[in-house]
Amino acid sequence: MAPALRYDRNISTNWKDNLRVVMVSTRNPLNIGAAARAMANFGFSRLRVVSPYDLAFREARSAVGAAPLLKNAEDYAALAESIADCHLVVGTTSIGHRGLQHPMRRLEYGARLIKRALAEAPVALLFGSEKFGLSNQDLSHCHWLMRIPTVDADLSMNLGQAVALCLYELARDPKAAKARPAKIAAATAAETEQITAMLIEVLERSGYVNPVTAGSTEEKVRRLVRRLGIAARDAPVLLGMLRQILWKVNG
Amino acid sequence: MAPALRYDRNISTNWKDNLRVVMVSTRNPLNIGAAARAMANFGFSRLRVVSPYDLAFREARSAVGAAPLLKNAEDYAALAESIADCHLVVGTTSIGHRGLQHPMRRLEYGARLIKRALAEAPVALLFGSEKFGLSNQDLSHCHWLMRIPTVDADLSMNLGQAVALCLYELARDPKAAKARPAKIAAATAAETEQITAMLIEVLERSGYVNPVTAGSTEEKVRRLVRRLGIAARDAPVLLGMLRQILWKVNG
Repeated sequence: MAPALRYDRNISTNWKDNLRVVMVSTRNPLNIGAAARAMANFGFSRLRVVSPYDLAFREARSAVGAAPLLKNAEDYAALAESIADCHLVVGTTSIGHRGLQHPMRRLEYGARLIKRALAEAPVALLFGSEKFGLSNQDLSHCHWLMRIPTVDADLSMNLGQAVALCLYELARDPKAAKARPAKIAAATAAETEQITAMLIEVLERSGYVNPVTAGSTEEKVRRLVRRLGIAARDAPVLLGMLRQILWKVNG
Repeated sequence: MAPALRYDRNISTNWKDNLRVVMVSTRNPLNIGAAARAMANFGFSRLRVVSPYDLAFREARSAVGAAPLLKNAEDYAALAESIADCHLVVGTTSIGHRGLQHPMRRLEYGARLIKRALAEAPVALLFGSEKFGLSNQDLSHCHWLMRIPTVDADLSMNLGQAVALCLYELARDPKAAKARPAKIAAATAAETEQITAMLIEVLERSGYVNPVTAGSTEEKVRRLVRRLGIAARDAPVLLGMLRQILWKVNG
């Protein structure tokens, strides 16, 4: 019989702790730093690095002031080792043409599947090198691929931005798109009318109002002031302004 | 009467052309480049730059190989000029504490409002400097602010990543999150049974099957093969493998 694979099933209460962001063959250590920062921004913590191109990574990590997340990054020589504890392995790409060999999911949909899987067990999200992305060998470790929906398949994405987008989509709250935030309290009708009356008085004293058409002008001004939708907190400020102007035009 | 403001109402058929990405006092020209790249990735085209910190920007722009979008970036000395043609001005921040002075909307919701406005007229989306964000004076030009929902308000976002996230949320397709992609065609029951039969034969010839319990083993194998959910395109490959193994164990 085949040897049983042993998984280190993570029963963390925070699903975000189940995500392993795996940077494969990253060339520029600045991009590993950018990935670490985006992870911190969105509350993810487990960064893994597979054969980074440069020794500069080791230096960047041990530098004074390096983010804790970067300091704790796990370093692997081979991709297979870096994903051994994961139940789902997803490769990322902004390019569409690899879909022939792998199921390809758009970020909006793929992130939902990943989020569901994260509730249960560790998931690896793979990012390839700046220049070549994930190799065909890297891709063969993936259950499926996730595509960032860019408009032009020939224009690759900045690696740090790609990491940020995937993590944002995972952390994104679909309910927040619908929930209206609390509205700013509107001024009461009494306050609005007080402003209207004072504005009309100012306009009269300034010679803006023609006595013959005064009635219709008053109505126009009243409607205009309502259209402004004055906020409660702005009403006393506007009144103060008008009071001062009235004092001046009366002087 | 107040002088009438004249707007250059843009009736472009592509709502994305109505967005002006405005980078205010950006220090590092690499971030303007990253913004330009993200714009190209998501199909936006109008980049405006207000008093970039360094002459390096002008050099970066005129460099051989600079992206067309960067070459066409419009350069302004003052924020007011850069947003003059816009009917809606939105400032971005990853920090929550400025909400006291401005209506603050989460990215998921704010992007919906912006998208609606873009269908009608130009909208400016403002990004402040790497170190200080938008100044209070910059903010006073904004109708409201949009907040990227990061977990830690004290940890600022990378500027290029912030631009990418906002543009992604605008370009994002909510329907794509729900639509299941086409499933991979499953093998037919006949193909699956052919594989099962050949696997059982291989197991018998290999001595894996105990003749006493052969019946229950056969059922176990059959169920196991079904659980594999073999794809139509993988069925002939698996059959080929089993045929070869059978030839070997019979040899």
